[in-house]
Amino acid sequence: MNTPITQLFNIKYPIIQGGMIWNSGHELVAAVSNAGGLGLLGAGSMYPDILREHIQKTKKNTDKPFGVNVPLLYPNVKEIMQLIVEEDVKIVFTSAGNPKTWTSYLKENGITVVHVVSSVKFALKSQEVGVDAIVAEGFESGGHNSREETTTFTLIPMVKEAINIPLIAAGGIATGRGMLAAEVLGADGVQMGSRFVASHEASSHSNFKQAVVAVKDGDTFLTFKELAPVRIIRNSFFNKLQEFYKTNPTKEQLQEFLGRARAKKGMFEGDLEEGELEIGQIAGLIHKVKLVEEIIKDIIEEYYLVKQQY
Amino acid sequence: MNTPITQLFNIKYPIIQGGMIWNSGHELVAAVSNAGGLGLLGAGSMYPDILREHIQKTKKNTDKPFGVNVPLLYPNVKEIMQLIVEEDVKIVFTSAGNPKTWTSYLKENGITVVHVVSSVKFALKSQEVGVDAIVAEGFESGGHNSREETTTFTLIPMVKEAINIPLIAAGGIATGRGMLAAEVLGADGVQMGSRFVASHEASSHSNFKQAVVAVKDGDTFLTFKELAPVRIIRNSFFNKLQEFYKTNPTKEQLQEFLGRARAKKGMFEGDLEEGELEIGQIAGLIHKVKLVEEIIKDIIEEYYLVKQQY
Repeated sequence: MNTPITQLFNIKYPIIQGGMIWNSGHELVAAVSNAGGLGLLGAGSMYPDILREHIQKTKKNTDKPFGVNVPLLYPNVKEIMQLIVEEDVKIVFTSAGNPKTWTSYLKENGITVVHVVSSVKFALKSQEVGVDAIVAEGFESGGHNSREETTTFTLIPMVKEAINIPLIAAGGIATGRGMLAAEVLGADGVQMGSRFVASHEASSHSNFKQAVVAVKDGDTFLTFKELAPVRIIRNSFFNKLQEFYKTNPTKEQLQEFLGRARAKKGMFEGDLEEGELEIGQIAGLIHKVKLVEEIIKDIIEEYYLVKQQY
Repeated sequence: MNTPITQLFNIKYPIIQGGMIWNSGHELVAAVSNAGGLGLLGAGSMYPDILREHIQKTKKNTDKPFGVNVPLLYPNVKEIMQLIVEEDVKIVFTSAGNPKTWTSYLKENGITVVHVVSSVKFALKSQEVGVDAIVAEGFESGGHNSREETTTFTLIPMVKEAINIPLIAAGGIATGRGMLAAEVLGADGVQMGSRFVASHEASSHSNFKQAVVAVKDGDTFLTFKELAPVRIIRNSFFNKLQEFYKTNPTKEQLQEFLGRARAKKGMFEGDLEEGELEIGQIAGLIHKVKLVEEIIKDIIEEYYLVKQQY
């Protein structure tokens, strides 16, 4: 396989593992990169010292390219960017914020920069400030998401039409068929989140992984739109939230209802009732927790099998 | 092209034109069927006598297969089904209701029956009651839509995994690339709505067609979820509705706010400010009102061009 994305990162397959909070530690990242994809550490759930430790451990366990995903709205982003430069990380994916703020700093330090967007407008803005590639993420993706609600099937061709730098599709992709379909729509590579949550190497709790493989269509929902929209599993906490919505709560009351560390409680500590369980719609097509090597092998095999039919 | 869908309907291309209210009169339907697709009259916006007239006019203008889309929740559905049998229509697509109610009546009268679903559960139920094929429609589609919000990219492979009758993908498809991607995901054919709204033959007002080609990503939104979710363009009426939502209205108040005949006002009478303008997200990729013949020719050309690259 040879696409603008395999060339940009010097990887074997144009498969990127999304840098998800509470899931994307050094074990997952090294496994994905060793299997020919691009692993991304999820800085969003790591204090700077923890991130440094994960970077160092990833380097010990793979000599292949890997990166870090940094949500730009997090409080200690400056410290995180500095340590990424100090630790000589070569690839950074930024998300949830303005791509202008950090792109030139990172590029000046020799880092390849990719920004995650969910609209044509921000894809154009990202290209303008000099990112090397764009992830366009659809409404079906898990975790935090955009207010526009544009789906992968419609977003990818619209972004492709607007930009001329490499494009990575995200949201709803977990199989070889999905990867080929994303390419047909105009993507040069894919980013997968949910599929890698259901891996033995993900750092999340095994309860959460089992909940993910049990998901059927319609079991996830985008909620908390008044704060920051997030796609989660409809569990006990979600149902209580829907009841609470009927009281017409203010943003402050919603924030209080959400409380602190609920994503950690759900995904890392495995509390399936009271935790926030972030996952994409495509979890309905994921039936088994597997080793990363097997996940990537299966995707590539299916990709070529389907491609042969065309 | 030879797929279970071209075989089922005896058509040249596996392209179905969605039977949309205020858009899908006899001119559009005959043009689509004459161009090798399957045209569907939209019974949802026609009194029985009007539907009869459109059926008769369609027959005068094409000797190719065509059908009628019947939303099952409409009040005069019994009268409509009887006249469909009387007028010897051979294909019926049912939507928005229980597929069990009418499938056997239609099948006993020699009619090919297809039901539109937006979940695996209703796909299985439709198969169980004996429909000949299923349309699986994603969240991105225009007009009335489901509460589950499952997108085309994730819904198609999940439904494909569950059923063994022919599958038509709908929602977000307007191009040859989209048609090929839907096939890769598991569809045997596609249903397109928005693309055919932006045709000279659609019965809607030219103001509405111009509004459709002006749509960008993020310009449509699924709203009225408390009544029946519907995807519409964010116009003046939509913005007033969002303000009205802040008053925490009851269902009855929302119904009153919506009023009567607002879809007709927008799509048929061309009132872009106060009308309800139903269209899918993929309108952002549709830039020109064209003749149906040109639309289908362009889709087929792009389909083969992209296919050659694989």
